[in-house]
Amino acid sequence: MNMNVMDRIKEVENDIGNLSSAQKILLATDGSVTTILDVLKGHINVETLVQEFREADDAQAQDLGINKGDTINYRTVVMSHKPEEPLIHAISLTPVDKLTNNFKEDLLKADIPIGRILRKYNIESRREVTHIGSEEPDEELRSIFHTDSTMLTRVYNIIYKDEILIQIKETFPYSLFRE
Amino acid sequence: MNMNVMDRIKEVENDIGNLSSAQKILLATDGSVTTILDVLKGHINVETLVQEFREADDAQAQDLGINKGDTINYRTVVMSHKPEEPLIHAISLTPVDKLTNNFKEDLLKADIPIGRILRKYNIESRREVTHIGSEEPDEELRSIFHTDSTMLTRVYNIIYKDEILIQIKETFPYSLFRE
Repeated sequence: MNMNVMDRIKEVENDIGNLSSAQKILLATDGSVTTILDVLKGHINVETLVQEFREADDAQAQDLGINKGDTINYRTVVMSHKPEEPLIHAISLTPVDKLTNNFKEDLLKADIPIGRILRKYNIESRREVTHIGSEEPDEELRSIFHTDSTMLTRVYNIIYKDEILIQIKETFPYSLFRE
Repeated sequence: MNMNVMDRIKEVENDIGNLSSAQKILLATDGSVTTILDVLKGHINVETLVQEFREADDAQAQDLGINKGDTINYRTVVMSHKPEEPLIHAISLTPVDKLTNNFKEDLLKADIPIGRILRKYNIESRREVTHIGSEEPDEELRSIFHTDSTMLTRVYNIIYKDEILIQIKETFPYSLFRE
Protein backbone atom coordinates (compact mmCIF):
# COMPACT_ATOMS: atom_id res chain seq x y z
CA MET A 1 0.00 0.00 0.00
CA ASN A 2 1.22 3.50 -0.78
CA MET A 3 1.69 5.63 2.28
CA ASN A 4 0.62 9.24 2.06
CA VAL A 5 3.64 10.77 0.41
CA MET A 6 2.53 14.37 0.93
CA ASP A 7 2.06 13.85 4.67
CA ARG A 8 5.47 12.19 5.05
CA ILE A 9 7.21 15.03 3.20
CA LYS A 10 5.57 17.52 5.55
CA GLU A 11 6.69 15.52 8.59
CA VAL A 12 10.27 15.52 7.31
CA GLU A 13 10.07 19.30 6.83
CA ASN A 14 8.81 19.69 10.38
CA ASP A 15 11.73 17.60 11.63
CA ILE A 16 14.65 19.09 9.72
CA GLY A 17 13.51 22.21 7.83
CA ASN A 18 12.20 23.16 4.40
CA LEU A 19 12.92 20.91 1.45
CA SER A 20 13.60 22.29 -2.02
CA SER A 21 11.38 21.38 -4.97
CA ALA A 22 14.03 18.99 -6.29
CA GLN A 23 14.38 17.27 -2.90
CA LYS A 24 10.62 16.81 -2.54
CA ILE A 25 10.38 15.36 -6.04
CA LEU A 26 13.34 13.01 -5.50
CA LEU A 27 11.66 11.66 -2.37
CA ALA A 28 8.17 11.36 -3.82
CA THR A 29 8.45 10.45 -7.49
CA ASP A 30 7.30 7.15 -8.95
CA GLY A 31 9.39 7.84 -12.04
CA SER A 32 13.00 7.10 -12.92
CA VAL A 33 15.49 8.80 -10.60
CA THR A 34 18.20 8.35 -13.22
CA THR A 35 16.18 10.44 -15.67
CA ILE A 36 15.76 13.19 -13.09
CA LEU A 37 19.47 13.24 -12.21
CA ASP A 38 20.37 13.19 -15.92
CA VAL A 39 18.42 16.38 -16.60
CA LEU A 40 19.44 18.13 -13.38
CA LYS A 41 23.14 17.34 -13.45
CA GLY A 42 24.11 15.87 -16.81
CA HIS A 43 24.72 12.21 -17.61
CA ILE A 44 24.92 10.15 -14.42
CA ASN A 45 27.34 7.35 -13.71
CA VAL A 46 26.89 4.50 -11.30
CA GLU A 47 29.71 3.07 -9.25
CA THR A 48 29.08 -0.25 -7.56
CA LEU A 49 30.50 -0.54 -4.05
CA VAL A 50 29.21 -3.99 -3.14
CA GLN A 51 27.51 -6.66 -5.18
CA GLU A 52 26.94 -10.13 -3.76
CA PHE A 53 24.37 -12.87 -3.47
CA ARG A 54 22.87 -13.32 -0.03
CA GLU A 55 20.22 -15.49 1.54
CA ALA A 56 17.13 -13.51 2.49
CA ASP A 57 16.66 -13.19 6.25
CA ASP A 58 13.21 -13.08 7.82
CA ALA A 59 12.65 -9.36 7.41
CA GLN A 60 13.92 -9.28 3.82
CA ALA A 61 11.81 -12.29 2.88
CA GLN A 62 8.72 -10.59 4.26
CA ASP A 63 9.53 -7.27 2.56
CA LEU A 64 10.13 -8.90 -0.80
CA GLY A 65 7.36 -11.50 -0.71
CA ILE A 66 9.79 -14.43 -0.98
CA ASN A 67 10.86 -17.27 1.34
CA LYS A 68 13.56 -17.02 3.98
CA GLY A 69 16.77 -18.38 2.52
CA ASP A 70 15.87 -17.49 -1.09
CA THR A 71 18.74 -15.89 -2.98
CA ILE A 72 18.81 -12.13 -3.29
CA ASN A 73 21.24 -9.89 -5.08
CA TYR A 74 22.50 -7.25 -2.65
CA ARG A 75 24.02 -4.21 -4.27
CA THR A 76 25.12 -0.82 -3.04
CA VAL A 77 25.97 1.92 -5.54
CA VAL A 78 26.75 5.60 -5.69
CA MET A 79 25.19 7.61 -8.48
CA SER A 80 27.49 10.50 -9.38
CA HIS A 81 27.70 13.23 -11.93
CA LYS A 82 31.47 13.09 -11.88
CA PRO A 83 33.50 10.83 -9.57
CA GLU A 84 34.04 13.81 -7.34
CA GLU A 85 30.33 14.71 -7.23
CA PRO A 86 28.39 11.89 -5.50
CA LEU A 87 24.63 12.50 -5.62
CA ILE A 88 22.69 9.51 -4.33
CA HIS A 89 23.65 6.36 -2.45
CA ALA A 90 21.42 3.38 -3.17
CA ILE A 91 21.06 -0.09 -1.69
CA SER A 92 19.04 -2.56 -3.73
CA LEU A 93 17.71 -6.03 -2.98
CA THR A 94 16.69 -8.16 -5.95
CA PRO A 95 15.15 -11.61 -5.58
CA VAL A 96 17.09 -13.35 -8.36
CA ASP A 97 14.95 -16.45 -8.84
CA LYS A 98 12.16 -14.45 -10.42
CA LEU A 99 14.18 -12.82 -13.18
CA THR A 100 14.03 -13.81 -16.84
CA ASN A 101 17.33 -14.29 -18.56
CA ASN A 102 18.28 -11.21 -20.60
CA PHE A 103 16.89 -8.93 -18.09
CA LYS A 104 18.65 -10.70 -15.21
CA GLU A 105 22.00 -10.41 -16.88
CA ASP A 106 21.67 -6.63 -17.19
CA LEU A 107 20.17 -6.19 -13.76
CA LEU A 108 23.02 -8.04 -12.10
CA LYS A 109 25.63 -6.36 -14.26
CA ALA A 110 27.36 -3.66 -12.34
CA ASP A 111 26.97 -0.01 -13.17
CA ILE A 112 23.78 0.12 -15.27
CA PRO A 113 21.07 2.13 -13.52
CA ILE A 114 17.78 0.26 -13.15
CA GLY A 115 15.85 3.06 -14.90
CA ARG A 116 17.92 2.58 -18.06
CA ILE A 117 17.47 -1.20 -17.95
CA LEU A 118 13.68 -0.89 -17.64
CA ARG A 119 13.66 1.48 -20.61
CA LYS A 120 15.92 -0.73 -22.71
CA TYR A 121 13.56 -3.68 -22.34
CA ASN A 122 10.37 -1.53 -22.50
CA ILE A 123 9.38 -2.94 -19.13
CA GLU A 124 5.96 -1.90 -17.86
CA SER A 125 6.10 -1.61 -14.10
CA ARG A 126 5.03 0.54 -11.20
CA ARG A 127 6.85 2.04 -8.24
CA GLU A 128 5.49 2.13 -4.74
CA VAL A 129 7.17 4.33 -2.14
CA THR A 130 7.05 2.63 1.27
CA HIS A 131 9.19 4.95 3.42
CA ILE A 132 10.31 8.59 3.40
CA GLY A 133 12.39 10.03 6.21
CA SER A 134 15.55 11.66 7.47
CA GLU A 135 18.45 10.11 9.35
CA GLU A 136 21.93 10.87 10.59
CA PRO A 137 24.73 9.56 8.35
CA ASP A 138 26.82 6.57 9.38
CA GLU A 139 30.58 6.48 8.77
CA GLU A 140 30.19 5.13 5.24
CA LEU A 141 27.79 7.85 4.13
CA ARG A 142 29.92 10.55 5.77
CA SER A 143 32.92 9.33 3.88
CA ILE A 144 31.12 8.97 0.52
CA PHE A 145 29.53 12.43 0.62
CA HIS A 146 32.27 14.21 2.62
CA THR A 147 29.64 15.74 4.89
CA ASP A 148 28.02 15.42 8.31
CA SER A 149 24.73 16.73 6.88
CA THR A 150 21.51 14.99 7.90
CA MET A 151 20.44 12.59 5.17
CA LEU A 152 17.14 12.35 3.31
CA THR A 153 16.12 8.80 2.51
CA ARG A 154 13.33 6.75 1.04
CA VAL A 155 12.53 3.13 0.23
CA TYR A 156 10.50 2.02 -2.76
CA ASN A 157 9.62 -1.14 -4.61
CA ILE A 158 9.61 -1.57 -8.36
CA ILE A 159 6.77 -3.96 -9.07
CA TYR A 160 6.62 -6.04 -12.22
CA LYS A 161 3.94 -8.61 -12.99
CA ASP A 162 2.54 -8.11 -9.49
CA GLU A 163 5.78 -9.12 -7.78
CA ILE A 164 8.57 -7.03 -6.29
CA LEU A 165 11.32 -6.93 -8.87
CA ILE A 166 13.65 -4.84 -6.74
CA GLN A 167 13.54 -2.92 -3.49
CA ILE A 168 15.66 0.21 -3.38
CA LYS A 169 16.73 2.45 -0.51
CA GLU A 170 18.05 5.82 -1.73
CA THR A 171 19.88 8.29 0.50
CA PHE A 172 21.30 11.76 -0.16
CA PRO A 173 22.47 14.66 1.99
CA TYR A 174 19.99 17.40 2.92
CA SER A 175 22.73 19.78 1.73
CA LEU A 176 22.42 18.53 -1.90
CA PHE A 177 19.76 19.51 -4.50
CA ARG A 178 19.07 22.73 -2.60
CA GLU A 179 18.81 25.03 -5.61
CA MET B 1 11.42 5.44 -29.38
CA ASN B 2 12.50 7.78 -26.64
CA MET B 3 14.13 10.95 -27.90
CA ASN B 4 17.13 12.22 -26.03
CA VAL B 5 15.45 14.11 -23.24
CA MET B 6 18.65 15.76 -21.97
CA ASP B 7 19.46 17.17 -25.41
CA ARG B 8 15.96 18.54 -25.91
CA ILE B 9 16.01 20.26 -22.50
CA LYS B 10 19.28 21.92 -23.44
CA GLU B 11 17.84 23.10 -26.76
CA VAL B 12 14.87 24.64 -24.96
CA GLU B 13 17.27 26.42 -22.59
CA ASN B 14 19.22 27.75 -25.56
CA ASP B 15 15.98 29.03 -27.08
CA ILE B 16 14.30 30.70 -24.11
CA GLY B 17 16.71 30.76 -21.14
CA ASN B 18 17.57 28.64 -18.11
CA LEU B 19 15.01 26.26 -16.73
CA SER B 20 14.61 25.62 -13.00
CA SER B 21 15.09 22.14 -11.54
CA ALA B 22 11.33 21.73 -11.17
CA GLN B 23 10.71 22.77 -14.80
CA LYS B 24 13.32 20.34 -16.12
CA ILE B 25 11.86 17.50 -14.09
CA LEU B 26 8.28 18.29 -15.15
CA LEU B 27 9.37 18.13 -18.80
CA ALA B 28 11.52 15.02 -18.50
CA THR B 29 9.95 12.72 -15.92
CA ASP B 30 8.45 9.34 -16.73
CA GLY B 31 6.66 9.37 -13.38
CA SER B 32 3.30 10.74 -12.30
CA VAL B 33 2.97 14.50 -12.76
CA THR B 34 0.09 14.54 -10.29
CA THR B 35 2.40 13.17 -7.59
CA ILE B 36 4.97 15.86 -8.32
CA LEU B 37 2.40 18.66 -8.23
CA ASP B 38 0.91 17.23 -5.03
CA VAL B 39 4.23 17.47 -3.19
CA LEU B 40 5.22 20.83 -4.68
CA LYS B 41 1.93 22.64 -4.26
CA GLY B 42 -0.41 20.60 -2.09
CA HIS B 43 -3.33 18.48 -3.24
CA ILE B 44 -4.07 19.11 -6.91
CA ASN B 45 -7.49 19.42 -8.48
CA VAL B 46 -8.41 18.77 -12.07
CA GLU B 47 -11.01 20.81 -13.91
CA THR B 48 -12.26 19.41 -17.20
CA LEU B 49 -12.78 22.01 -19.92
CA VAL B 50 -13.76 19.71 -22.79
CA GLN B 51 -14.57 16.02 -22.89
CA GLU B 52 -16.01 14.47 -26.02
CA PHE B 53 -15.72 11.45 -28.26
CA ARG B 54 -14.15 12.08 -31.63
CA GLU B 55 -13.17 10.03 -34.64
CA ALA B 56 -9.40 9.74 -35.01
CA ASP B 57 -8.06 11.64 -38.01
CA ASP B 58 -5.05 10.39 -40.00
CA ALA B 59 -2.39 11.95 -37.78
CA GLN B 60 -4.07 10.88 -34.53
CA ALA B 61 -4.56 7.33 -35.82
CA GLN B 62 -0.88 7.12 -36.69
CA ASP B 63 0.23 8.62 -33.37
CA LEU B 64 -1.94 6.27 -31.36
CA GLY B 65 -1.46 3.11 -33.39
CA ILE B 66 -5.18 2.79 -34.23
CA ASN B 67 -7.27 3.08 -37.39
CA LYS B 68 -8.58 6.31 -38.85
CA GLY B 69 -12.17 6.75 -37.71
CA ASP B 70 -11.69 4.78 -34.47
CA THR B 71 -13.26 6.46 -31.47
CA ILE B 72 -11.03 8.49 -29.19
CA ASN B 73 -11.83 10.34 -26.03
CA TYR B 74 -10.61 13.93 -26.35
CA ARG B 75 -10.21 15.74 -23.08
CA THR B 76 -8.67 19.04 -22.03
CA VAL B 77 -8.14 19.80 -18.36
CA VAL B 78 -6.47 22.31 -16.10
CA MET B 79 -4.61 20.99 -13.08
CA SER B 80 -4.75 23.59 -10.31
CA HIS B 81 -3.74 23.93 -6.72
CA LYS B 82 -6.65 26.22 -6.04
CA PRO B 83 -9.12 27.42 -8.67
CA GLU B 84 -7.18 30.67 -8.82
CA GLU B 85 -3.82 28.94 -9.23
CA PRO B 86 -3.75 27.04 -12.55
CA LEU B 87 -0.56 24.97 -12.93
CA ILE B 88 -0.68 22.74 -16.00
CA HIS B 89 -2.96 22.54 -19.02
CA ALA B 90 -3.29 19.06 -20.48
CA ILE B 91 -4.89 17.64 -23.62
CA SER B 92 -5.33 13.88 -23.70
CA LEU B 93 -6.32 11.46 -26.44
CA THR B 94 -7.51 8.03 -25.35
CA PRO B 95 -8.44 5.29 -27.81
CA VAL B 96 -11.56 4.02 -26.05
CA ASP B 97 -11.98 0.65 -27.75
CA LYS B 98 -8.95 -0.76 -25.96
CA LEU B 99 -10.06 -0.06 -22.42
CA THR B 100 -11.30 -2.65 -19.99
CA ASN B 101 -14.46 -1.81 -18.12
CA ASN B 102 -13.69 -0.53 -14.62
CA PHE B 103 -10.71 1.25 -15.77
CA LYS B 104 -12.55 2.86 -18.71
CA GLU B 105 -15.23 4.22 -16.47
CA ASP B 106 -12.69 6.02 -14.28
CA LEU B 107 -10.56 7.17 -17.18
CA LEU B 108 -13.53 8.76 -18.90
CA LYS B 109 -14.89 10.19 -15.69
CA ALA B 110 -14.11 13.84 -15.45
CA ASP B 111 -11.70 15.23 -12.92
CA ILE B 112 -9.66 12.21 -11.81
CA PRO B 113 -5.98 12.60 -12.76
CA ILE B 114 -4.61 9.69 -14.75
CA GLY B 115 -1.79 9.15 -12.23
CA ARG B 116 -4.31 8.49 -9.48
CA ILE B 117 -6.30 6.09 -11.66
CA LEU B 118 -3.19 4.07 -12.55
CA ARG B 119 -2.32 3.84 -8.87
CA LYS B 120 -5.85 2.88 -7.84
CA TYR B 121 -5.82 -0.10 -10.20
CA ASN B 122 -2.13 -0.96 -9.61
CA ILE B 123 -1.55 -0.58 -13.35
CA GLU B 124 1.95 -1.45 -14.54
CA SER B 125 2.82 0.83 -17.45
CA ARG B 126 5.58 2.94 -18.90
CA ARG B 127 5.77 6.52 -20.13
CA GLU B 128 7.59 7.57 -23.24
CA VAL B 129 8.24 11.27 -23.84
CA THR B 130 7.98 12.05 -27.57
CA HIS B 131 8.28 15.85 -27.63
CA ILE B 132 9.70 18.61 -25.44
CA GLY B 133 9.63 22.25 -26.54
CA SER B 134 8.52 25.82 -26.03
CA GLU B 135 5.76 27.72 -27.80
CA GLU B 136 3.88 30.99 -27.65
CA PRO B 137 0.48 30.79 -25.93
CA ASP B 138 -2.73 30.94 -27.92
CA GLU B 139 -5.74 32.91 -26.68
CA GLU B 140 -7.05 30.01 -24.59
CA LEU B 141 -3.75 29.47 -22.73
CA ARG B 142 -3.35 33.22 -22.18
CA SER B 143 -6.77 33.40 -20.65
CA ILE B 144 -6.34 30.28 -18.48
CA PHE B 145 -2.97 31.32 -17.06
CA HIS B 146 -3.49 35.11 -17.15
CA THR B 147 -0.08 35.56 -18.76
CA ASP B 148 1.64 36.18 -22.09
CA SER B 149 4.65 34.11 -20.92
CA THR B 150 6.20 31.67 -23.36
CA MET B 151 4.93 28.16 -22.62
CA LEU B 152 6.87 24.97 -21.92
CA THR B 153 5.27 21.89 -23.37
CA ARG B 154 5.76 18.19 -23.85
CA VAL B 155 3.95 15.19 -25.29
CA TYR B 156 4.16 11.69 -23.85
CA ASN B 157 2.46 8.36 -24.21
CA ILE B 158 1.42 6.11 -21.36
CA ILE B 159 1.91 2.59 -22.67
CA TYR B 160 0.06 -0.38 -21.22
CA LYS B 161 0.30 -3.93 -22.53
CA ASP B 162 2.41 -2.66 -25.42
CA GLU B 163 -0.28 -0.29 -26.67
CA ILE B 164 -0.77 3.43 -26.20
CA LEU B 165 -3.31 3.82 -23.44
CA ILE B 166 -3.31 7.60 -23.58
CA GLN B 167 -1.35 10.38 -25.25
CA ILE B 168 -0.98 13.55 -23.21
CA LYS B 169 0.22 17.02 -24.15
CA GLU B 170 1.05 19.12 -21.09
CA THR B 171 1.69 22.86 -21.19
CA PHE B 172 2.64 25.37 -18.52
CA PRO B 173 4.03 28.93 -18.48
CA TYR B 174 7.78 29.44 -18.31
CA SER B 175 6.95 31.88 -15.49
CA LEU B 176 5.66 29.03 -13.24
CA PHE B 177 7.71 26.54 -11.17
CA ARG B 178 10.65 28.98 -11.14
CA GLU B 179 11.64 28.47 -7.52
